Amino acid sequence: MEIEKITKEALGIVTPSREEENRVISTANSVINIFNNGLIRRGYKDFEVSLQGSVAKGTWLPGDRDIDIFVILPRIYLNKIKNGDVVNDLIDVARENNLKWIIKYAQHPYIQVLINDFEIDVVPCIKISQGERPFTAADRTPLHTEFVKSKLGGKNTDVRLLKAFFKTIGIYGAEIKVQGFSGYVSELLVIYYGSFIDAIKAMAKWSTKRAFIDMTNTYDEKNAFKKFRAPVIIIDPVDPNRNAAASVSRENLATAIAASREFLEHPRLEFFKQIHRSYPMPQVVIPSIVLRIGYPINVSPDIVWGEIRRLMDSLTRNLEKYEFRVIRSMAWSDDKSVILLMLSLREVRLPPYENHKGPLVDSDAARNFIKKYINDQNVVGPFIRGSRWYVIKKRRFVNAIDLIKYLIPTISLKNLRSYVNEAEFFVIESIEDLRVFNTNERNVIEEFLYARPWWLV
Amino acid sequence: MEIEKITKEALGIVTPSREEENRVISTANSVINIFNNGLIRRGYKDFEVSLQGSVAKGTWLPGDRDIDIFVILPRIYLNKIKNGDVVNDLIDVARENNLKWIIKYAQHPYIQVLINDFEIDVVPCIKISQGERPFTAADRTPLHTEFVKSKLGGKNTDVRLLKAFFKTIGIYGAEIKVQGFSGYVSELLVIYYGSFIDAIKAMAKWSTKRAFIDMTNTYDEKNAFKKFRAPVIIIDPVDPNRNAAASVSRENLATAIAASREFLEHPRLEFFKQIHRSYPMPQVVIPSIVLRIGYPINVSPDIVWGEIRRLMDSLTRNLEKYEFRVIRSMAWSDDKSVILLMLSLREVRLPPYENHKGPLVDSDAARNFIKKYINDQNVVGPFIRGSRWYVIKKRRFVNAIDLIKYLIPTISLKNLRSYVNEAEFFVIESIEDLRVFNTNERNVIEEFLYARPWWLV
Repeated sequence: MEIEKITKEALGIVTPSREEENRVISTANSVINIFNNGLIRRGYKDFEVSLQGSVAKGTWLPGDRDIDIFVILPRIYLNKIKNGDVVNDLIDVARENNLKWIIKYAQHPYIQVLINDFEIDVVPCIKISQGERPFTAADRTPLHTEFVKSKLGGKNTDVRLLKAFFKTIGIYGAEIKVQGFSGYVSELLVIYYGSFIDAIKAMAKWSTKRAFIDMTNTYDEKNAFKKFRAPVIIIDPVDPNRNAAASVSRENLATAIAASREFLEHPRLEFFKQIHRSYPMPQVVIPSIVLRIGYPINVSPDIVWGEIRRLMDSLTRNLEKYEFRVIRSMAWSDDKSVILLMLSLREVRLPPYENHKGPLVDSDAARNFIKKYINDQNVVGPFIRGSRWYVIKKRRFVNAIDLIKYLIPTISLKNLRSYVNEAEFFVIESIEDLRVFNTNERNVIEEFLYARPWWLV
Repeated sequence: MEIEKITKEALGIVTPSREEENRVISTANSVINIFNNGLIRRGYKDFEVSLQGSVAKGTWLPGDRDIDIFVILPRIYLNKIKNGDVVNDLIDVARENNLKWIIKYAQHPYIQVLINDFEIDVVPCIKISQGERPFTAADRTPLHTEFVKSKLGGKNTDVRLLKAFFKTIGIYGAEIKVQGFSGYVSELLVIYYGSFIDAIKAMAKWSTKRAFIDMTNTYDEKNAFKKFRAPVIIIDPVDPNRNAAASVSRENLATAIAASREFLEHPRLEFFKQIHRSYPMPQVVIPSIVLRIGYPINVSPDIVWGEIRRLMDSLTRNLEKYEFRVIRSMAWSDDKSVILLMLSLREVRLPPYENHKGPLVDSDAARNFIKKYINDQNVVGPFIRGSRWYVIKKRRFVNAIDLIKYLIPTISLKNLRSYVNEAEFFVIESIEDLRVFNTNERNVIEEFLYARPWWLV
């Protein structure tokens, strides 16, 4: 079968080499040893330093530079985790061993150690057992690792295929930037459906309304959607109060369905190996606005992307409110220096006058409406249409850029505020208008204008 | 009081002179005598020729040239009315007396006699008593006359004021052209509210949702609206199965409310004497399309206006469907030679491309949608937005005139068909574009562009 041939060939792409595997495992083990010994010497008791995440589960993708190591402590260490005592000891150990490190924050602080090209998170957490309520989200991780290891059987490669699939179609990762499927969700899908190809077949039949998986048999579907209010619900087997797929947006659910269907119809190796095609120049350019915004320094991507999403939502919503029809919108960033907001509009400039709906003729407001406009030489009307008064009056914002400039100061932003205030504005009405952008930005914008997902043939 | 002063002064406008009254009554009486004698001589039995309508009720307006005379026959004449025997006898009588006459058709034929400048309808009908079911609509008229005469007391002048008020604001008449308040409805309003000014005060407080009067106490309001489905319901006191105000459109209900409020706030003599102001040149011209259509020969205005309304409804509905936003529309005719259809649009030309909504990604139709567009170099996409596939494709109708020309042959028209096929099209984007019209047409179009009702100050 075609699909089997393709997936077999894909194994070579998604499986790390023996050499890479050795390097990852030995790096992880040496870090585990360092912290284990260091903490013992500092008097830590009843703890365990252990490998977690995709490396522990054997589901990481070649080239992944992230290793997760957890310091699992008994409950009595909770305050020391929260107040930073544990992290201070971790820093102390790192210093003593001449490791490069930086401090990071999730719900509580942890450190990231940098060895060669690996980024190794060393995260303290509290040991809990299945069903027990976690103190912080990190406490669940060892249970996740345990669950996946015990249930996955030999299906590591299927997880790797699925992760690579999600990755190439742009919906891999729970972070706000992506709003997609996490590694853990990929593992749960393979465990639940049995294999990569069965997961794909299942997703191809998912409904855009909602996808629901509950291996714990805790919920019926209807109640689960009432409780979790998300398009995809996958009950976390180690904590039935949690939706492991809460991050997946509706559009990414739709993308998963559409791409799964496409893969079944036209299976291709491309689905496992991201290729950077240069898109054919779009024949038709829909009038678009691009905002180029500087990327804020020293802010975590999730916070930046939270603000980008809020900004984009507010802009599209308000553009529509002022009668600019938004056809597509996309935000992109290299997560280093630049953010691009791209908005395709039905038109960048609207007619200079607009129909302005007034009150019902039988309302108390009718009198004031008439009074307001009766002596205004710049309106047409007031006139009655249906049961209401109307006037045709000068449109406040004829140009979408003027409106966006007006809207920006009204949107609550913290870290992006000064960068957005300094944003550059570009109107794209033909391919020539892309000349001002550098190659990288230009590729992104062309991909946006091209609009068609690369995987559609 | 200001209002009392105005209405007192208005009496002079709305009351016919003694001389006119004499002329009308004596003309009517001579016609009654002629037909009474003529029919007796032709062997008619148990019948009555009597004055009906506004002249009989003393509620006609000065200058009204219409007189209604009914030949009220016993039931046994029903077939002779329907098959035209009665009308033939009426024609015979008219000929014998050298009267100018023409034949007319409502539910059954009748004749119109022309004497001097009077148009005298001579209408045969069957005598019924109150509560009895009429055979044709004409049979109710004698009951209407009787009811109004018995209930109006001395309030003829109040009816005349109200009719003149409706007339100047353009909502007098039940015909399809106007879709307004008939003379009979004006009489019922004065009877119900007690006087002109009380009717105005009541209408100023009417709701745009619905107005309801039932002097017969047959209905509760809710059931009446379920049965009659019209914005204004005034149960006919002589036939509770009939809504006397069925002709009133929602917009004319709104106009009645708004103008009543205006009159109470700024009472003016103008409300009783139509003045033909030349409107100030509109400062702002909203892009508009005018269709000039020839007026069909030998078709009754109600039939012509029925088709005009259907044409306008279909055009505005379909323009909106193709994304042309219709801001205002109006039809006008001199009812002799020309019809003007006027449509103000947000824009006459739309962007050359449009966003085309496709199927849900999880639907069976998704595959065909993709197949249809995937190799089309003239579309953008397909792309996913929300849960659907979309493409951006060439707009079929960029220019509203092209769309209207495409729509016209699809609209079912009988008498107007050939005239509409030959319609002339004009785009108005500035006052200069009005130069091609004659003065009369130009006034009409300027009034439309001006939009504000004349009575608003």
